[in-house]
Amino acid sequence: MSQFSSELQTGLLDLMRWRRDVRRFRSDPVDEAVLQACLDSFLSAPSVGLSEPWRVLRLEGDAARASALENFTSANANALAGYAGEKAALYSQLKLTGMQEAPVQLAVFCDEETEKGAGLGAGSMPETRRYSVVAAITQFWLVARAHGLGVGWVSILDPDKLGRDLDVSPDWRLVAYLCIGWPEADSDTPELERAGWEDRRGHLPVITR
Amino acid sequence: MSQFSSELQTGLLDLMRWRRDVRRFRSDPVDEAVLQACLDSFLSAPSVGLSEPWRVLRLEGDAARASALENFTSANANALAGYAGEKAALYSQLKLTGMQEAPVQLAVFCDEETEKGAGLGAGSMPETRRYSVVAAITQFWLVARAHGLGVGWVSILDPDKLGRDLDVSPDWRLVAYLCIGWPEADSDTPELERAGWEDRRGHLPVITR
Repeated sequence: MSQFSSELQTGLLDLMRWRRDVRRFRSDPVDEAVLQACLDSFLSAPSVGLSEPWRVLRLEGDAARASALENFTSANANALAGYAGEKAALYSQLKLTGMQEAPVQLAVFCDEETEKGAGLGAGSMPETRRYSVVAAITQFWLVARAHGLGVGWVSILDPDKLGRDLDVSPDWRLVAYLCIGWPEADSDTPELERAGWEDRRGHLPVITR
Repeated sequence: MSQFSSELQTGLLDLMRWRRDVRRFRSDPVDEAVLQACLDSFLSAPSVGLSEPWRVLRLEGDAARASALENFTSANANALAGYAGEKAALYSQLKLTGMQEAPVQLAVFCDEETEKGAGLGAGSMPETRRYSVVAAITQFWLVARAHGLGVGWVSILDPDKLGRDLDVSPDWRLVAYLCIGWPEADSDTPELERAGWEDRRGHLPVITR
């Protein structure tokens, strides 16, 4: 099927509006079949030169999860130290991770040295390999939301330390740490907006040349 | 609406399967209202700290398009020089851009110095600003496909030169050059796969820790 209905167009917009960065999860587990259906979205993700450079690691053990949470705690303390006054007070009250609760946690890496794709398209912009991983994650996020799951992207981490702690190849660069589970509540408004940290723009300016 | 039907789940998977990197476009123009509907997807894209760092530039003038095409031609010659033997012969036959034909062409940048979001989430991983731009582009790509449009992401470019030629702020980093238009043909198989350059993996290995 290569023609898409107006229902699909509208549903897609709804999905994007209700796809949020989720940091508050219920404790009930995620069915493996549902998770697998979401992970299958990686198979249709775009990648530069068909390099498919995504590498997915699932954190199940206590040691792996503890090292990741400690990594966040340390990076978050550093981040807080960079704010002052009201902004610092507000920052300290924000819930910025669901790592304590989320039943499924994935670290998604980019294999910077993959030979797949033979480097096509990545000569002058090698960062497009990492961008391919981001595109795959974005697809995963939308599919997860379509199944009712929430996804939270944690970036307040020392990426090199996380890679070392999880004993992955030094050629792998952390792109995202994802918390996945059933959200406590649904919202079409970002939590940072509700907390008064920042607003979204209501329009997209386009410059012409 | 925060509950999504199985029809939407299935439609989304179809959409991802038929979303391709398109390099062969028909010459008929894209209706501005359709393009605008696609661009509106940026408004619901995720961004680190709500920084919304995407900056969209549309190339309409002959000078802007000529400089971009020249940039591609030069970068592509450099890329070809990196291959030898059969791979070089195959590379030289690939059609890697629709820049000569695509009616709409966008250069999408990341404003690395935006103050929006006050740096939240981007302290230890500043590259997440660029990743936010990639997520927005991925959403745009899917919405465009839902409307029947094809999008081709060109990365065989000198990004700094493109920014200078288009006279954008030095704080802006090129993330993607997008060709947009009605595709000559639809396919659920990547052009690089059909041309014998590379295959896709049929499964996603997940490592556990």
